[in-house]
Amino acid sequence: MISFENDYIAGAHPSVLKRLLETNLENLAGYGADTYCERAKEKIKRACDCPHAEVEFMVGGTQTNAVVISTMLKDYEGVIAAQTGHISVHEAGAIEFTGHKVLELSHKEGKIDPAALRKYLEDFYGDGNYEHMTLPGMVYVSYPTEYGTLYTKAELTEISAICGAYHMSLFLDGARLGYGLMSAQSDLTLPDIARLCDVFYIGGTKVGALCGEAVVFTRKNKPVHFITSVKKRGALLAKGRLLGVQFDALFTDELYFEISKYVLSMADRLKMIFHEAGLDFYLESPTNQQFIIVQNERMHALEKEIRFSFWEKYDDDHTVIRFVTGWSTKEADLDALKKIVKK
Amino acid sequence: MISFENDYIAGAHPSVLKRLLETNLENLAGYGADTYCERAKEKIKRACDCPHAEVEFMVGGTQTNAVVISTMLKDYEGVIAAQTGHISVHEAGAIEFTGHKVLELSHKEGKIDPAALRKYLEDFYGDGNYEHMTLPGMVYVSYPTEYGTLYTKAELTEISAICGAYHMSLFLDGARLGYGLMSAQSDLTLPDIARLCDVFYIGGTKVGALCGEAVVFTRKNKPVHFITSVKKRGALLAKGRLLGVQFDALFTDELYFEISKYVLSMADRLKMIFHEAGLDFYLESPTNQQFIIVQNERMHALEKEIRFSFWEKYDDDHTVIRFVTGWSTKEADLDALKKIVKK
Amino acid sequence: MISFENDYIAGAHPSVLKRLLETNLENLAGYGADTYCERAKEKIKRACDCPHAEVEFMVGGTQTNAVVISTMLKDYEGVIAAQTGHISVHEAGAIEFTGHKVLELSHKEGKIDPAALRKYLEDFYGDGNYEHMTLPGMVYVSYPTEYGTLYTKAELTEISAICGAYHMSLFLDGARLGYGLMSAQSDLTLPDIARLCDVFYIGGTKVGALCGEAVVFTRKNKPVHFITSVKKRGALLAKGRLLGVQFDALFTDELYFEISKYVLSMADRLKMIFHEAGLDFYLESPTNQQFIIVQNERMHALEKEIRFSFWEKYDDDHTVIRFVTGWSTKEADLDALKKIVKK
Amino acid sequence: MISFENDYIAGAHPSVLKRLLETNLENLAGYGADTYCERAKEKIKRACDCPHAEVEFMVGGTQTNAVVISTMLKDYEGVIAAQTGHISVHEAGAIEFTGHKVLELSHKEGKIDPAALRKYLEDFYGDGNYEHMTLPGMVYVSYPTEYGTLYTKAELTEISAICGAYHMSLFLDGARLGYGLMSAQSDLTLPDIARLCDVFYIGGTKVGALCGEAVVFTRKNKPVHFITSVKKRGALLAKGRLLGVQFDALFTDELYFEISKYVLSMADRLKMIFHEAGLDFYLESPTNQQFIIVQNERMHALEKEIRFSFWEKYDDDHTVIRFVTGWSTKEADLDALKKIVKK
Repeated sequence: MISFENDYIAGAHPSVLKRLLETNLENLAGYGADTYCERAKEKIKRACDCPHAEVEFMVGGTQTNAVVISTMLKDYEGVIAAQTGHISVHEAGAIEFTGHKVLELSHKEGKIDPAALRKYLEDFYGDGNYEHMTLPGMVYVSYPTEYGTLYTKAELTEISAICGAYHMSLFLDGARLGYGLMSAQSDLTLPDIARLCDVFYIGGTKVGALCGEAVVFTRKNKPVHFITSVKKRGALLAKGRLLGVQFDALFTDELYFEISKYVLSMADRLKMIFHEAGLDFYLESPTNQQFIIVQNERMHALEKEIRFSFWEKYDDDHTVIRFVTGWSTKEADLDALKKIVKK
Repeated sequence: MISFENDYIAGAHPSVLKRLLETNLENLAGYGADTYCERAKEKIKRACDCPHAEVEFMVGGTQTNAVVISTMLKDYEGVIAAQTGHISVHEAGAIEFTGHKVLELSHKEGKIDPAALRKYLEDFYGDGNYEHMTLPGMVYVSYPTEYGTLYTKAELTEISAICGAYHMSLFLDGARLGYGLMSAQSDLTLPDIARLCDVFYIGGTKVGALCGEAVVFTRKNKPVHFITSVKKRGALLAKGRLLGVQFDALFTDELYFEISKYVLSMADRLKMIFHEAGLDFYLESPTNQQFIIVQNERMHALEKEIRFSFWEKYDDDHTVIRFVTGWSTKEADLDALKKIVKK
Repeated sequence: MISFENDYIAGAHPSVLKRLLETNLENLAGYGADTYCERAKEKIKRACDCPHAEVEFMVGGTQTNAVVISTMLKDYEGVIAAQTGHISVHEAGAIEFTGHKVLELSHKEGKIDPAALRKYLEDFYGDGNYEHMTLPGMVYVSYPTEYGTLYTKAELTEISAICGAYHMSLFLDGARLGYGLMSAQSDLTLPDIARLCDVFYIGGTKVGALCGEAVVFTRKNKPVHFITSVKKRGALLAKGRLLGVQFDALFTDELYFEISKYVLSMADRLKMIFHEAGLDFYLESPTNQQFIIVQNERMHALEKEIRFSFWEKYDDDHTVIRFVTGWSTKEADLDALKKIVKK
Repeated sequence: MISFENDYIAGAHPSVLKRLLETNLENLAGYGADTYCERAKEKIKRACDCPHAEVEFMVGGTQTNAVVISTMLKDYEGVIAAQTGHISVHEAGAIEFTGHKVLELSHKEGKIDPAALRKYLEDFYGDGNYEHMTLPGMVYVSYPTEYGTLYTKAELTEISAICGAYHMSLFLDGARLGYGLMSAQSDLTLPDIARLCDVFYIGGTKVGALCGEAVVFTRKNKPVHFITSVKKRGALLAKGRLLGVQFDALFTDELYFEISKYVLSMADRLKMIFHEAGLDFYLESPTNQQFIIVQNERMHALEKEIRFSFWEKYDDDHTVIRFVTGWSTKEADLDALKKIVKK
């Protein structure tokens, strides 16, 4: 069955897998101290135009969020996130497991509104009892957001300035970073992200890797003895090469960006198919996740021929469903989709 | 200066202090294994009309919330609370410190709306991905709420039924329980609370004790090896008698309820004074906390003569301020207040 | 029945209780911001001859240990303690509950041997893989130890120097501090303790208070936003006055030290009684805890007339039992003990 | 340079990698719900002769230990381990990070002595104050141990019986399980392990996989909502196929055991080389880790030509060093080693 369920339904992009094969027999140091990790870090720093950046690799997104947030926050701090943020809802309380509160703000299509953030902070510090409350120590944003939407450069610049003014770190979850940066609607570059954020990660799992996320600390702010803290959280991979080799491949010959562009082009075709079929979009997503409102009956019919995701109930008769393109999406999948949708 | 800052500005009610004095020289077992703890537990069980209840004493409210919630929740569960709940805002992330998420619901004057609770749960279990999310394992309500408001018996009964249907515990924070139960507007009794809730606590600190809260487990559901879990959280008092003696006093000759009635009568006079002075109430509180909207200028004038609490900014020119009566509030304090407010 | 079970069998020393009575009706700020807390802090700083010290009050010992250790350690650090340390054994894992490991060293009569400590650290940093292990960030010592023994000034000075060399904090658990300082065998003063330790606490619960421990940070090293971290751990007392008034009393007219001297004089008589009766001491304790080896049969006989504590099995036929004197121990209790023991 | 540094210096065994390649383009469900995970689970259950076993895949060893231990222990429980156990020393406090204490027992060549375990438990429950201590809820053993040694069937049977008697789970860390089971000295089979342990894991990372450990719950005791708890710990892999495909390969045609046998044959040759060269063994290891005592000078000479691991200081002049064989160790490596060692 054709599948638009998510962007991790297939294994690794062939160019990534090829490098794993080619390097398989080399004897390499463990725990990320190998040549490929080193090489990948250098390439990422160059791509970020941030020579002093510190790069570390993790296996998955929730793990990365929990490790980064809990090692950067101080004991008495929590992290501000949109109510729809991945850490707010879909990580089973992984941040709270580390002893820190997620301070949830209301959202606009998945985004934190800079004005709402500023008001939150003014109110917080305007309250004489704030020492009895979790102090905000970090702002978490997703780019693209969980709804596929994008912060503009102006918005991210404003959020970054607010973080600076309130001595908070800005952390950007880039699980799908490529699909944000390469989107036609994006006015942000990777160096912009590196300049505006204190820390962010470049998602590999959803952009062609078998697994792996590259965390970039941009202000010489990598937590001291980070490797020990990573190990303490069960997040240190013995064969760190698995991550190093993959990111080395992804950041060779712009592969990461080429994959992203291809996936977005598939998403464009998918959008067109739905538009032509007169389907209602839940919102205008400029990236590789598309949210459609369908009658429940229609949803059940579609389920028999295509794999997609339930997103949320719209009303008693309608449901929001999600279609995602990935590196393995083929033209033929879209042709098939077109036929099914037209029926 | 007269003070309506809160209900813990004075020491212990004289009858409570007297008992501490009278028993001071007795040799007693430590850690809550003394006669007075036993006696107090028996009296509380009788007052709750719940002979099989299990009663335990803790020192303070935040501690009690953290201990009860974290020992009753399963690893994968969180606790539902109103966004304004004490555990949501004013406990510095004490629940999260134990590794559990507070699942915040919007509120109506500090209360959880049973219909909103039901919808939340239907949506939660209607989402096929719910295993990636924190499962709701408990509902936390405050009685009275942080806004001084009260659940009706119908509301609490409905919430209790929802908890039963979804296999969640219902936990009632009774830091000011007496002021709820003795309120003219209350249609709930202590036995009702014991019947409807799986666990709740009877607040001592704010109702005449130096410190101390009595937790009541109503369904033979006290966590196994509870004392070890309490110790593990640094919450086990060596001289447990300090809590036992005080609660023994509070539950002798209805002292707890007499104090509550007196405090509410003072609150009634306070309300009248404000009404007569034409001040705006933020909401109608039937208990000992009163919330007034004043112009900022007026607030600053009042501050010079009375102690009260900042509650929250109302708009750029107005502030919500809180006045609280306690066991040590005297008629003379109210006379003085009247004069000041009339100016 | 006469009791030597522990030093917290009675309520508060009469002079302490008197002050609670006298101040009971005063309106005071909550959470430790009252005059009595301020006054007690000043007196303690003077007694420590440490004008820049920062003093904070907690309710109990396990709580104090957990709060101090977990707020001072960095994420990747643990605390070194003797295998017999209170935090190693008798606190139900309270340190681990905060996410930190207790690194246990073997002991000599309850004490850490400075040479063993140095060897541990040399071996630790001599191991190339130490970043995969919990880094030692603090040394925990008890004074007196759990066996009633005392570090000499030379020993504590050496441990302090080692801590300095390895960038670790030295934390002294003074649950029974007075009984150490006032012991005939002690060559340490309170100012010595303040000079040699980075942080320590002056135990109130076991030296005449109803509850309460005074933490002293000696190097301007009180953790930032400490009150928020305390609240987050459920350890912030609403009526902070309860602690402030008691410590104000204990540090007025040398009461803390007078109580300690009295208790030690009672311990001296107790020791003499046992020596005269030909009982075997498990070790030579110069403080108020005495450990006796008795045949199990004899232990059971004694249990019928006196309360004491089981300490540990000595062999199949003998048990180590503990006798403790406290502020409420009377000459008459010792007379009675003498008669019983002589039988 | 030839390397005997550890058993994870190379990538995946070619047969494992081949399967990753062959399945790379298949569209598969995420989070372990794919066909290959299912298939691998079935094969493992069969190999364990334990049809009702529940199998789950994790990425790495420390993660597995932390997830299993913290989801199986009750709040008030800790885990017993040898002082040399991986969780005691080399996991940076990962168990403590989850809030649980590791109760360390002294060891014999890395093993827990059943008699010492029994004594520990008798003493623990013989102490009237045990409720103030961490209750032992699980026993952790490694097979092979960190010193390469093996429990006999008699020993493991006795430990299993003790666990049963004291209501503790027995958890076996099988990071190198194959090298234990296939050792000439082993009298245990995989079905024996499954029968004697409540839970254990089959290590993949060190036995030919890129990453991955297979946890086997043998008593229908998989924690409820396990997937949520795994996610909460950041341990849920999006492309679960990466683990499923590898374990499917490892448990096809006995590959896991064939790899193990080959690695052990290489270890036998390595041992012989050292014996012939007259080197001192630190202990007799029957598995793929060999511990040699060398003069420091010699160690430095060897370091120039071979990679191995520092294990621990032996005395001022000698060091214990470790040599490990793995699936990628070649005859040629041993030939080269022989030449170097003979010099």
